[in-house]
Amino acid sequence: MIYEGKSKCIWEEPNEQIRQEFKDSLTAFNGTVKENLPGKGALCNAISSFLFEKLIEKGVVTHFVKKLSETEMLCEKVDIIPLEVVVRNHAAGSFCKRYGVAEGREIDLIEFFLKNDDLNDPLITVDAAICLGLVTSQEIEEIIGISKNINDILKHAFSKAGLILFDFKLEFGRKSGKIILADEISPDNCRLIDVETRRSFDKDLFRKKMGGILEAYQEVAHRLGV
Amino acid sequence: MIYEGKSKCIWEEPNEQIRQEFKDSLTAFNGTVKENLPGKGALCNAISSFLFEKLIEKGVVTHFVKKLSETEMLCEKVDIIPLEVVVRNHAAGSFCKRYGVAEGREIDLIEFFLKNDDLNDPLITVDAAICLGLVTSQEIEEIIGISKNINDILKHAFSKAGLILFDFKLEFGRKSGKIILADEISPDNCRLIDVETRRSFDKDLFRKKMGGILEAYQEVAHRLGV
Repeated sequence: MIYEGKSKCIWEEPNEQIRQEFKDSLTAFNGTVKENLPGKGALCNAISSFLFEKLIEKGVVTHFVKKLSETEMLCEKVDIIPLEVVVRNHAAGSFCKRYGVAEGREIDLIEFFLKNDDLNDPLITVDAAICLGLVTSQEIEEIIGISKNINDILKHAFSKAGLILFDFKLEFGRKSGKIILADEISPDNCRLIDVETRRSFDKDLFRKKMGGILEAYQEVAHRLGV
Repeated sequence: MIYEGKSKCIWEEPNEQIRQEFKDSLTAFNGTVKENLPGKGALCNAISSFLFEKLIEKGVVTHFVKKLSETEMLCEKVDIIPLEVVVRNHAAGSFCKRYGVAEGREIDLIEFFLKNDDLNDPLITVDAAICLGLVTSQEIEEIIGISKNINDILKHAFSKAGLILFDFKLEFGRKSGKIILADEISPDNCRLIDVETRRSFDKDLFRKKMGGILEAYQEVAHRLGV
């Protein structure tokens, strides 16, 4: 094992690849709230694998190679860029709290956060990220372009499933000078709102202690046709 | 009186103008630490008036009309844009804490903060400021251009006074469709480091409870030739 995060373990594999194992643990507020939910890892692995395949079909370069087992996927090994890229279509969560904005307001924004648990993943501007040497201006331009493309693809996919993609978080890596989508795409790092009932189908159920998490993740998988 | 802030009072005047009175109070950490320092207001008024005049000479459009008394200046009335513009030449203060960066590191950055005490003046990206309708993209481009120009002028002025301009905060307003520099420029909202001794000559003396504040502000005025 080369890395253990809050919701995944990363194992070294031959040929510059890694095995990404999805854990059943759910955490929120920078790991201060934690719960174990048997079956959650398998659902996130299934949904992520499905969405990575969809993105690859549309020409997005991702680290995903193939689903290996219920809870594991095989991926290319990349150098992770220490930025969380948050694409926002509707205001929610930290954005609303930070600026006193109503939940659900339509926005069209990409925000970057420094990946650093000790510093509580602070918001960072594009200029500061470049200035601190985290990315080059060319890389961040590319990341913004790819993220917008991914947003278009995911919005469409979730919309067909009766879900509004409020926001989602991406992570990117470098490999042989290329920018590559890494990490995962699942209800753990997307906000998905039912177009009819306006109910959450994502980790907000956990953050807001509303329960029904596993059922919601299952419903997302089912509606997507995973 | 139409507005009382933490360090200034604004009084209505005829002809779309205002009187800006500099108070002797010093506050830090969003008003949680406070002190009264007789003479501080007069020093900030003198230094601000001097620097506004210097900027006007160099073609910068400011709200400054003239110094009225020891603690007051006459200004054009503008619609304040609710953004604090922080120009950074060296890392210091909140920037260092936020990203775990060493004090003094050379950077070349402009950051924006939403002017909102209740929300603790959060960092805001250019895109979010536009998206929330605080400024247009044309206005913010203009603000960035003016701020860089002001930075060049102020860096030069302070450098001749043996002081390194680590960072400073600006506020802008609108009047008849024009972007106009407002607020003040003084050791209350600049970080000034002596080029030889590396000592602070600004409000950091107060934030860090080091004392000698009035003497430092006096020395800044003296060295600038105020």
